[in-house]
Amino acid sequence: MKKIINDPSTVVAESLRGMAMAHRDLIRVIEEPAVVVRADAPVRGKVAVISGGGSGHEPMHGGFVGRGMLDAACPGAVFTSPTPDQVQAAVQEAHGGAGVLLVVKNYTGDVLNFETAAELAEAEDIPVRTVVIDDDVAVKDSLYTAGRRGVGGTVLLEKIVGAAAERGDDLDAVERLARTVIGNVRSMGMALTAPTVPHVGEPSFDLPADEMEVGIGIHGEPGRARMPLENADGIVTRLLEPIVEDLPFTGGDRVLLFTNSMGGTPLIELYLAHGIAERLLSERGIVVERRLVGPLITSLEMQGMSLTLLKVDDELLELWDAPVHTPALRWGG
Amino acid sequence: MKKIINDPSTVVAESLRGMAMAHRDLIRVIEEPAVVVRADAPVRGKVAVISGGGSGHEPMHGGFVGRGMLDAACPGAVFTSPTPDQVQAAVQEAHGGAGVLLVVKNYTGDVLNFETAAELAEAEDIPVRTVVIDDDVAVKDSLYTAGRRGVGGTVLLEKIVGAAAERGDDLDAVERLARTVIGNVRSMGMALTAPTVPHVGEPSFDLPADEMEVGIGIHGEPGRARMPLENADGIVTRLLEPIVEDLPFTGGDRVLLFTNSMGGTPLIELYLAHGIAERLLSERGIVVERRLVGPLITSLEMQGMSLTLLKVDDELLELWDAPVHTPALRWGG
Repeated sequence: MKKIINDPSTVVAESLRGMAMAHRDLIRVIEEPAVVVRADAPVRGKVAVISGGGSGHEPMHGGFVGRGMLDAACPGAVFTSPTPDQVQAAVQEAHGGAGVLLVVKNYTGDVLNFETAAELAEAEDIPVRTVVIDDDVAVKDSLYTAGRRGVGGTVLLEKIVGAAAERGDDLDAVERLARTVIGNVRSMGMALTAPTVPHVGEPSFDLPADEMEVGIGIHGEPGRARMPLENADGIVTRLLEPIVEDLPFTGGDRVLLFTNSMGGTPLIELYLAHGIAERLLSERGIVVERRLVGPLITSLEMQGMSLTLLKVDDELLELWDAPVHTPALRWGG
Repeated sequence: MKKIINDPSTVVAESLRGMAMAHRDLIRVIEEPAVVVRADAPVRGKVAVISGGGSGHEPMHGGFVGRGMLDAACPGAVFTSPTPDQVQAAVQEAHGGAGVLLVVKNYTGDVLNFETAAELAEAEDIPVRTVVIDDDVAVKDSLYTAGRRGVGGTVLLEKIVGAAAERGDDLDAVERLARTVIGNVRSMGMALTAPTVPHVGEPSFDLPADEMEVGIGIHGEPGRARMPLENADGIVTRLLEPIVEDLPFTGGDRVLLFTNSMGGTPLIELYLAHGIAERLLSERGIVVERRLVGPLITSLEMQGMSLTLLKVDDELLELWDAPVHTPALRWGG
């Protein structure tokens, strides 16, 4: 196993320690149980937006903690749901008196553990709402999921509801907005290579040198089809068509296009793929209003990519453009 | 070869096209000869800062074009120097009447081609100064280099001189500052795996499953030693010690620490390594004033990392903190 680590059992804790040092102006890290918190949390009178999930998808979610996005994130072990007590600790650190929105990706363990934490918070009279995102059009029911998986749309969701909470929307409004985003976002991914989980020590699956997996999950869960490697035009078309047809997105729709690297795919390839996706959308008369390109929801060192499309209107664009100050996304005053 | 590309011969052009679409607010791309230019170039009365080099190191250099950093960048073919006519075109697009600083990484082809371009510009009465950065302490004379190679320090150099040009420093002052940075920055890298150049189609070198290359170049040039794989503490120590001893950096020195991924190394490992580097510096009494962590000077999908240390004072910190609006680095108002 070729990794820059000391011990598989301490990877997450050591990584969080380095992250806290790197971004001390934006976040702080609680070590036990592991929580990444906005440096100035709790923000009095603001809805707290909290997310979390297995580690190994960095910068998701800890890299999205900061002004204008998440108030806290709970990093589980690699590819493992965070525990209810992590989520509970995050709620206690981040709750500023205006309630909490929990953003959960649709994986069975995540949903269960966030649910338990929500019950614990309610027992302490903290108003909690939970939204579950399931934007992956690839497959229904999967290795760790009943229904569709939550993937790249989560990044857009967390940015947009984070901006709404920051401008002072109340818990009802933030929850309603989250459901709007979830209803309008769709994604699909593919892999060229497999990730290696540190405590496993070998690749999560075998993928021959001339094959790719289309519809892959972010933990290497099987997708729609394993097939011969295609060129970039073919790959992007295979991802974009099911996304567009699912919602569906139609001519005249305004969208945000997010082209994501699964980790090991370098930026030179990602920009190339992004250009193809923009061209294909333009041919369908779909108007790309905003773009996000980068490795933002990854699967360790897996080579591959995903596309996410969000239907937007003026309000969503305003929230997207609003300032954000996090380790991974930063713009605005 | 597992890559998301259409044709090795069109990778750079197609990637630049996608990059231009993704960042149309910050940059524009000239296709022939290939140049990435700041959207509002030329900026009248400002020194233009221009860099370039082979592609395959993204986001370097095109991702550093924008307000507060580079005015233009010339991307060569993958791992291949840009041609003199690319640099000449960049000068023509970016020159705002106050002269041009060319930032060149020390590779023989880059130095020659930028020199030729500088002569062409001078023939047109455009004042040009050239600085060559050679911050890699790993080896002297290498596969493509006489003397030391230019690596991670380039990112810091371009940010700092870009900020100086933006605040209105004249060509003499910007050049002097560049030489100060070059005199105070040192780097070293290592690799776990080899990159694959698209038009070659196979890995640049063989590295057995239990070995690493310490002192690697960003094109996979041989380093100081090929040795058995070590843990993260060992790897970071092997990179940091030669850097610290070279300048040397000593107790009480104030520094900027840049922890860079070579591309394929995921953020979870990079943060872990960064934390170790901060700890080791602290043990030496060296004060880390600023940090930069991410894949910013890469070698395609190569797994590995580099460390860069820049000795700073209040003026360098002020320039580092100044606003920057580029695809890869963005902060400030």
